[in-house]
Amino acid sequence: MCARFRVWFGMSRALYVGRFQPFHLGHLYAVRYVAERSSEFIVMIGSAQYSHTLDDPFSAGERVTMIRLSLDEAGIDPSRYYIIPVTDLNLHEVWVAHVVSYVPKFDVVYTNEPLTRRLFLEDKRFPVKPVPLRKRKSYSATEVRKRILNGENWKELLPKSVAKFIEEINGVERLRDLNKDDKA
Amino acid sequence: MCARFRVWFGMSRALYVGRFQPFHLGHLYAVRYVAERSSEFIVMIGSAQYSHTLDDPFSAGERVTMIRLSLDEAGIDPSRYYIIPVTDLNLHEVWVAHVVSYVPKFDVVYTNEPLTRRLFLEDKRFPVKPVPLRKRKSYSATEVRKRILNGENWKELLPKSVAKFIEEINGVERLRDLNKDDKA
Amino acid sequence: MCARFRVWFGMSRALYVGRFQPFHLGHLYAVRYVAERSSEFIVMIGSAQYSHTLDDPFSAGERVTMIRLSLDEAGIDPSRYYIIPVTDLNLHEVWVAHVVSYVPKFDVVYTNEPLTRRLFLEDKRFPVKPVPLRKRKSYSATEVRKRILNGENWKELLPKSVAKFIEEINGVERLRDLNKDDKA
Amino acid sequence: MCARFRVWFGMSRALYVGRFQPFHLGHLYAVRYVAERSSEFIVMIGSAQYSHTLDDPFSAGERVTMIRLSLDEAGIDPSRYYIIPVTDLNLHEVWVAHVVSYVPKFDVVYTNEPLTRRLFLEDKRFPVKPVPLRKRKSYSATEVRKRILNGENWKELLPKSVAKFIEEINGVERLRDLNKDDKA
Amino acid sequence: MCARFRVWFGMSRALYVGRFQPFHLGHLYAVRYVAERSSEFIVMIGSAQYSHTLDDPFSAGERVTMIRLSLDEAGIDPSRYYIIPVTDLNLHEVWVAHVVSYVPKFDVVYTNEPLTRRLFLEDKRFPVKPVPLRKRKSYSATEVRKRILNGENWKELLPKSVAKFIEEINGVERLRDLNKDDKA
Amino acid sequence: MCARFRVWFGMSRALYVGRFQPFHLGHLYAVRYVAERSSEFIVMIGSAQYSHTLDDPFSAGERVTMIRLSLDEAGIDPSRYYIIPVTDLNLHEVWVAHVVSYVPKFDVVYTNEPLTRRLFLEDKRFPVKPVPLRKRKSYSATEVRKRILNGENWKELLPKSVAKFIEEINGVERLRDLNKDDKA
Repeated sequence: MCARFRVWFGMSRALYVGRFQPFHLGHLYAVRYVAERSSEFIVMIGSAQYSHTLDDPFSAGERVTMIRLSLDEAGIDPSRYYIIPVTDLNLHEVWVAHVVSYVPKFDVVYTNEPLTRRLFLEDKRFPVKPVPLRKRKSYSATEVRKRILNGENWKELLPKSVAKFIEEINGVERLRDLNKDDKA
Repeated sequence: MCARFRVWFGMSRALYVGRFQPFHLGHLYAVRYVAERSSEFIVMIGSAQYSHTLDDPFSAGERVTMIRLSLDEAGIDPSRYYIIPVTDLNLHEVWVAHVVSYVPKFDVVYTNEPLTRRLFLEDKRFPVKPVPLRKRKSYSATEVRKRILNGENWKELLPKSVAKFIEEINGVERLRDLNKDDKA
Repeated sequence: MCARFRVWFGMSRALYVGRFQPFHLGHLYAVRYVAERSSEFIVMIGSAQYSHTLDDPFSAGERVTMIRLSLDEAGIDPSRYYIIPVTDLNLHEVWVAHVVSYVPKFDVVYTNEPLTRRLFLEDKRFPVKPVPLRKRKSYSATEVRKRILNGENWKELLPKSVAKFIEEINGVERLRDLNKDDKA
Repeated sequence: MCARFRVWFGMSRALYVGRFQPFHLGHLYAVRYVAERSSEFIVMIGSAQYSHTLDDPFSAGERVTMIRLSLDEAGIDPSRYYIIPVTDLNLHEVWVAHVVSYVPKFDVVYTNEPLTRRLFLEDKRFPVKPVPLRKRKSYSATEVRKRILNGENWKELLPKSVAKFIEEINGVERLRDLNKDDKA
Repeated sequence: MCARFRVWFGMSRALYVGRFQPFHLGHLYAVRYVAERSSEFIVMIGSAQYSHTLDDPFSAGERVTMIRLSLDEAGIDPSRYYIIPVTDLNLHEVWVAHVVSYVPKFDVVYTNEPLTRRLFLEDKRFPVKPVPLRKRKSYSATEVRKRILNGENWKELLPKSVAKFIEEINGVERLRDLNKDDKA
Repeated sequence: MCARFRVWFGMSRALYVGRFQPFHLGHLYAVRYVAERSSEFIVMIGSAQYSHTLDDPFSAGERVTMIRLSLDEAGIDPSRYYIIPVTDLNLHEVWVAHVVSYVPKFDVVYTNEPLTRRLFLEDKRFPVKPVPLRKRKSYSATEVRKRILNGENWKELLPKSVAKFIEEINGVERLRDLNKDDKA
């Protein structure tokens, strides 16, 4: 059923927000959970303007690519979702209004991130729901970045296509370079 | 064929840039032209941060919605394209680098806009190709906004779903309000 | 009655927004109108970051001073109002949220300015009311700036204390300098 | 005596700067000290654009409200002071000029904060004076935020009206939410 | 005599400000005039961040190059001057402080530009002097850009090395592209 | 030989980037190394907008002065180099394009800084070469700032003229003030 129909029939559109540095299996699990509970959904890439730092190694465009590859791999129909990178304003009080202006209309927010949850709660316009976590300790972007730096098995935490993509763009070398300081 | 395959087989991905205030039949014609010449394409929404002015009445999220509705209406498969809003930095010398960082990799740029063409030409990394125009005088966003303000037939210039959407969000009333000054 | 009591008793606080370049008798008339209809009110100085241009000659601090002088002159009790300068973000979709975060809570908006009215209307959280205009043609900041440049009688359009203040800070000379171009 | 008279008679106006996250009894003590030594004074709220972080939990508007409530509670006449929130530019060399442009003219600066002191000293235009501290260890905003998070007695460090206000806006819940990380 | 000696002996350093879009013979005449009246001088390139617009076609780096080439051509010793590009903050009240922080210390300002003159006058820290104009009508950057667009003799208004440089970087083609609109 | 000739004859221009907080003997050693390997070179001052923090105590203008004094002291001909302060955009993906737009054309980059190296490597347009280090442990800006704060011998790490200049501008007192916190 095409997007127009969904809007006409009042079916729900969910917002799912993350930084996705990188997009891992925990994110994919969350997306599936959201996808089962809404007719359409938006994967919003936050802090879109940052890249090439240890905490934010990948650019917005690279993260868009990772997400599309993962959702293709998971067999989720592209007509059901939007991937939207949004620049961070670093002004928390206007953050919800900023998000609302960058993405298509939505009816519900799925998030476990406390600041995102709090800002949407204070705004009062949208229901805010948690996403059940799976292997929260290892399925974390911090853990992935740590393993890449330490030469541990980072690929098992990612969708296969994302692991492959990170290698294609020399992401491992990028992270290790960012980790060097100029003393060594 | 899924997105990963396209990347592996080196098929081309095109970039098509516009402000889309609003997205009209000329834009749709251009998208079809680009879609016929590439395996995947990116519709990049420029000046994403502006809205609620006479020249930029619609928000990024509203423009994302218009484009998805139009491409659905035209029967273009959502697995073939990305819609990415990009904030304008107002720094022309870094504009190409900024665009490159916000969207997936691309191989060719389609544009008739002189500044976009010049900036990509000076960058030298991508071929820049024109899009044949159709009824350039009336298929123009300026003309659409003018007709809305003057109460003329603006709907004939837009995909049906976009005209419907503009009415749903009270876009006509918004434009007329923005046109009032505080003297009247 | 002190401010706390007003909040406890649910009395209304109004927001009145302007650029006040400079604050003139029409503004003062509007402030009186608002003051009569609310227990407390906020005079918000918009576009606070601009000064030393032909359209925005006076700094935020100078405008704060003008407004306090005028309201003192009019005998309005300072315990009833707040004067808050607010930097413009130039992002219309987040403007209401930005205003809300910079000023004390309010219940109603008074404005004749079409963009301010539209943005508050689309936000839907506050009633928006007009202010009756008095001698709208001459009681306008544009008219005041024009008269200063042309050497016409600009003082009759301003509260006496504001006219005096503009002379003290050499405002007339400032405006005339800003009006020169480097050809003459 | 009205504000104009004060200016004409060359009476002094003092500037007192703080972030006020939140405004506590130490701040109130300092304001009283400044109030006794000047005819008028400005309470400038620095870093006005930040809120909803652990170090800057309260918005500019909330801080304006706290200060007015405290000064009302302390019986300080609102005709003697201005409360002005000022956005931080994060450019130290222009900070003094930025402050000067946002607030009414002043003759003297009261501060214990080393960077504020240094920037005004290098500017050379204003005398910079310290404020005697009282119970500096507990009368500190850092201490207040720590106690709120730890469930200790934070109310004893604040003017009664501020403690009440923080509860009204669910400030305790806000701080605890900001303190959670997404691992728990 | 080396720069250190000049500072120790209290010899004067002048500031000369312009946008230099492009640097023409009138600018060179002014630089000579300033050079005769000071031991060292600073050529500050204002609005450094803009390029590739009809009013600001050349980047900061291109303008640095033009000025060095011109002063070499005029035989002015590079040990006597600094060429410093400065980003515009678009905040007039802090502009002087911003300039002061970006360039070496200076004692006197030479300018004919009314806003620059006014801002330095209100700052009160530096004497502001005019530069005698020569053929003001034709020795103007606006005239140069107009002639380039119209195919008239623009080279006669520029130092030879600047005219040559503009051709090397295809500046004529750049300006003409910027002048096209997308209707033609 | 004048600058034009160098460009015509295709002689190389090198880019050397640093924050220079402050410029020390290690930097001077690197500049000499670069100067021996190129006909002209650019000393680019990064993070130009920061000053008056413990990590970035000196303004862009002060750093320009330090570098000119040092190169004069070292007898390097000012006609061979440019000193260009460049504001940091904090957007790594556009950083190279931003640098390219602020400085004259260059052919080669000399740097030991890992992020600078990585960004230029990913850009692919310029060869990136290391600079041999001398006494890397003590010839470091971090070490200089530490010694100033601790009252150790910091002058032995700097060119004589820079040590003298830092004293003239009361740099020692500035750093110590910035190191105080408001608890003491």
